[in-house]
Amino acid sequence: MDFGTIIGLVAGLGLIFGAIMVGGDIGGFVDVAGLLIVGGGTLSGSLVMFPMGQVIGSISVALNAMKVPPHNPLRIIKQMMEIAKKARKDGLLSLQSFKSSDRFLSKSIQMMVDGMDQNVIREVLSSEIHNLRQRHMTGAMFFEQVGLLAPAFGMIGTLVGLVQMLQNLSDPASIGPAMAVALLTTFYGALFANLICIPISKKLEIRSAEETVSLELIVEGVLSIAKKENPSIMKSKLTAYLQPKMQAKAK
Amino acid sequence: MDFGTIIGLVAGLGLIFGAIMVGGDIGGFVDVAGLLIVGGGTLSGSLVMFPMGQVIGSISVALNAMKVPPHNPLRIIKQMMEIAKKARKDGLLSLQSFKSSDRFLSKSIQMMVDGMDQNVIREVLSSEIHNLRQRHMTGAMFFEQVGLLAPAFGMIGTLVGLVQMLQNLSDPASIGPAMAVALLTTFYGALFANLICIPISKKLEIRSAEETVSLELIVEGVLSIAKKENPSIMKSKLTAYLQPKMQAKAK
Amino acid sequence: MDFGTIIGLVAGLGLIFGAIMVGGDIGGFVDVAGLLIVGGGTLSGSLVMFPMGQVIGSISVALNAMKVPPHNPLRIIKQMMEIAKKARKDGLLSLQSFKSSDRFLSKSIQMMVDGMDQNVIREVLSSEIHNLRQRHMTGAMFFEQVGLLAPAFGMIGTLVGLVQMLQNLSDPASIGPAMAVALLTTFYGALFANLICIPISKKLEIRSAEETVSLELIVEGVLSIAKKENPSIMKSKLTAYLQPKMQAKAK
Amino acid sequence: MDFGTIIGLVAGLGLIFGAIMVGGDIGGFVDVAGLLIVGGGTLSGSLVMFPMGQVIGSISVALNAMKVPPHNPLRIIKQMMEIAKKARKDGLLSLQSFKSSDRFLSKSIQMMVDGMDQNVIREVLSSEIHNLRQRHMTGAMFFEQVGLLAPAFGMIGTLVGLVQMLQNLSDPASIGPAMAVALLTTFYGALFANLICIPISKKLEIRSAEETVSLELIVEGVLSIAKKENPSIMKSKLTAYLQPKMQAKAK
Amino acid sequence: MDFGTIIGLVAGLGLIFGAIMVGGDIGGFVDVAGLLIVGGGTLSGSLVMFPMGQVIGSISVALNAMKVPPHNPLRIIKQMMEIAKKARKDGLLSLQSFKSSDRFLSKSIQMMVDGMDQNVIREVLSSEIHNLRQRHMTGAMFFEQVGLLAPAFGMIGTLVGLVQMLQNLSDPASIGPAMAVALLTTFYGALFANLICIPISKKLEIRSAEETVSLELIVEGVLSIAKKENPSIMKSKLTAYLQPKMQAKAK
Repeated sequence: MDFGTIIGLVAGLGLIFGAIMVGGDIGGFVDVAGLLIVGGGTLSGSLVMFPMGQVIGSISVALNAMKVPPHNPLRIIKQMMEIAKKARKDGLLSLQSFKSSDRFLSKSIQMMVDGMDQNVIREVLSSEIHNLRQRHMTGAMFFEQVGLLAPAFGMIGTLVGLVQMLQNLSDPASIGPAMAVALLTTFYGALFANLICIPISKKLEIRSAEETVSLELIVEGVLSIAKKENPSIMKSKLTAYLQPKMQAKAK
Repeated sequence: MDFGTIIGLVAGLGLIFGAIMVGGDIGGFVDVAGLLIVGGGTLSGSLVMFPMGQVIGSISVALNAMKVPPHNPLRIIKQMMEIAKKARKDGLLSLQSFKSSDRFLSKSIQMMVDGMDQNVIREVLSSEIHNLRQRHMTGAMFFEQVGLLAPAFGMIGTLVGLVQMLQNLSDPASIGPAMAVALLTTFYGALFANLICIPISKKLEIRSAEETVSLELIVEGVLSIAKKENPSIMKSKLTAYLQPKMQAKAK
Repeated sequence: MDFGTIIGLVAGLGLIFGAIMVGGDIGGFVDVAGLLIVGGGTLSGSLVMFPMGQVIGSISVALNAMKVPPHNPLRIIKQMMEIAKKARKDGLLSLQSFKSSDRFLSKSIQMMVDGMDQNVIREVLSSEIHNLRQRHMTGAMFFEQVGLLAPAFGMIGTLVGLVQMLQNLSDPASIGPAMAVALLTTFYGALFANLICIPISKKLEIRSAEETVSLELIVEGVLSIAKKENPSIMKSKLTAYLQPKMQAKAK
Repeated sequence: MDFGTIIGLVAGLGLIFGAIMVGGDIGGFVDVAGLLIVGGGTLSGSLVMFPMGQVIGSISVALNAMKVPPHNPLRIIKQMMEIAKKARKDGLLSLQSFKSSDRFLSKSIQMMVDGMDQNVIREVLSSEIHNLRQRHMTGAMFFEQVGLLAPAFGMIGTLVGLVQMLQNLSDPASIGPAMAVALLTTFYGALFANLICIPISKKLEIRSAEETVSLELIVEGVLSIAKKENPSIMKSKLTAYLQPKMQAKAK
Repeated sequence: MDFGTIIGLVAGLGLIFGAIMVGGDIGGFVDVAGLLIVGGGTLSGSLVMFPMGQVIGSISVALNAMKVPPHNPLRIIKQMMEIAKKARKDGLLSLQSFKSSDRFLSKSIQMMVDGMDQNVIREVLSSEIHNLRQRHMTGAMFFEQVGLLAPAFGMIGTLVGLVQMLQNLSDPASIGPAMAVALLTTFYGALFANLICIPISKKLEIRSAEETVSLELIVEGVLSIAKKENPSIMKSKLTAYLQPKMQAKAK
């Protein structure tokens, strides 16, 4: 579980609403019409923008991103080294019985065991990483664009409120509260974008980059095994992905 | 039909105008001069920016994007597998009689049947995809740029209104309503850009990316057939474009 | 002639000034000092930014862009097909007498007739397209940057006006008109940028992309002739640049 | 030590707070709730955005960047020339005993001494530089994104303050001070972003580019030694990285 | 000398301050504290951002850019043609005595006379151009970033002024002048960025692009001589860099 995301969301909302409550009544910050304009407008805009399936699936994309186990390149390198040793000792076919919960690793090894050409293996696996990355980027782009729509509809809501207030200036006492309500939609849009949408978009990008490194390590390793390269060369190639500190650990 | 776009547009406009009517009279939000400045200015700017044919054709581009059938890579892969099996069993020439409603697929297979060199086939089809993508990007860019012009002319309209109001401050009672009218053009520009232009621009980009994947699947498949590759290799290459869940279905 | 640009400019200015005149006196929107700040400041900034020759030549660049004949890839493909047929029938040397008003086409064919190596022809022509594109991009960048400077100097003018107004609040009756004058420079900058500079910049980019396609068609065709490729292959290669609808026409 | 960063931070804060104190009491610029909204909101957003380890490690990343010794390509070139001379005189194996505090240089030479293939050496070292660069870019991106979040939460804080002020306009005397407090969060966000986050992000990018040049010099040199190229060719290749003035010094 | 830059700077400042003086006293636009916040803050931020040497050297970078002689590709092409003729007539070694004030040209010819391999010459010269370009881009980036910092510190100064004014509203007569002073820092930042920093940044980019073309012409020419290509091929390759009008002159 990715506790950072949850801590960030809870702490951020807690801080903002705590600050509001210290300064007065929280009721003054709730405006149903304003929430409808910002929330509904942003949702409407995202339906025009993205295929409906993606809009519906976006929440599960965000939740999945939080469930991803932490990226552990060191563990993958160790696993690839063991597979390489086994292949060297007992032959490639001994990997026939290899099983892993990692679908990509299983598939890569199966292709090698099936005797596919190195270039085909590289082509297929690179294509799979490329297409995975495209799908990840679409997920990150969804939250990025929603993070642009929300402040825009916040401003639209504020414009609606200001126009209504200005058309009706006869009662000076109502100007302040009416303007306060008008500003609330800008507040909703800014908070939704900057605490939720934009950060989730970036986290999806970062998770995708990490996962790509994991998959590239598997591809490099499998190709090295298929080429029957010396394990020390394979180790050099794989540890090049690690930080200097972790390279020492891999030895 | 792409119902998401229509639902999004109707719901978005409904919400905003619903919120306006709850807060008062909708008549106060209609200003013909303002609509002319924003609509006419944006149209004028787009005529300076784009060739006239593209401005006129933009509405049909947007409508076409909504008519596109949903992207179904699984169906294409199955079709390519069947074609590959037929070519393997009855020879390439048996595809002479192949007919498909998909122009690109028919053309690709015809080139193969005509005995064109693999490299020429790849070059021609890649060039066609590249040029299609350029045209799609131009369509998306049209709505993106209109989505930038509209708020700009909204601001220009507001400036015109503010200057006129400020030159004539003698009657304090008219200040509020005059400023309300001035703000309306900013409202029009923001709504037009964020509910219609920018989302349609993004949807055109997404549709183009999906269509590109469909065409790339056809190219990969046709080249694999032309190379007389083993169908299992072709299947590995094509399913690499699918999500893991759908890869299982393809088996 | 590119009538779209002229219609857009005339209609846009007509609309804005029409709306101004409906709302009051146009005289209130003319402020010589403000025009000097925005126009002079933008010109000064562009002189710091670009070589003087380019600043002086920018107007002719913009005018030339409007004179460009419409892009007609179909006509070029037909011409290249005819040249290919002649070369096939009468030999490459029969093109010695070939003459065209298109400098690039003449040069390309001359190189071929001179017996230059295919790779050299491709290198020289690609380099020429690349350098042409660089020059076009510099022209588009000029108007893009001027489109950023104009609103900036508009804002600078407004700041000057506001500071002068605020230092002299003794006469309340003068506040409104003074602020109106201050806002005028922002109006000038926004209008100049969004109706003229940014749209012209984009149109130059689009014209450049179209011209590039024309030149690429010539290069593809000439190289295909030089390689003595089958005309049907050349046709496949060239029509790949066309929209599906126009591909049918090319047959 | 990178004194520029420290001087810049101290001078910048000194100037701003000096200007504040000249104009009045510094106490009026301290608002604990506002500091909590901006600081806490930015931290919360960054926890949603980045893996927790990176948020915690960011301060050490920033401090490390200041400890980096100045980039000295001339020294590296001289060192590589000496290594090349030794390898030429005493053979590659004489480098077995080579020791350097520079981990990357030691590793590169060890690979050469181990007799690894040139292409493998190039691949491993390029991969290491590429992955180092990715990690550096992630560090720079952290401060870049925090530099966007801080002004956003500054604006959110100001909106909270304005809404509270507008709901409570009964006491005119409190309007000014309440608005002053509301503006403080925008001030905090802008100062934090523009004096600290964005500049540190850029400095990390520049340090990364400098370090990359150092590593590329080592790779070029090692590969030149492995290829047994003439030292004068190696010198030409390496000095091409230097400014003309420093090229003269390298002779 | 690049008179455009000087004319632009003098004319721009003259216009703005002329407009100020027409509207009132220039003394009202001088605020020492404000100048310190904008100038000092921008300088401080740039010290955090860039290595100290680069901050100090930036003025000479800007001055050097103005001293650059105008780019004259035609002259370079003529010179390269003469060198090629001499090499063809008297042999490569006859260039031993070749001397030029252009360091890059001398170096290129020396490498050729030294009998270095074509590929090494191309590699060394491309690497030198690439590294020169990186240094130029860093120079341009300095002024670009300073052009972003200046308006930011302008806004920070205005916020400081507004907060101080709002905390002290007791004397209504002082509100106007205090707000005027507060706005001055925004004015300073905008003027400094848009008349000086951003335009100089762009001019450095343009000069760099021009110089790159000059160097690429030399590389193309030298490689053509080294390959002993026909001078007419060399001429075709080099004139491809010229505008059509100038291509005619080169004949």
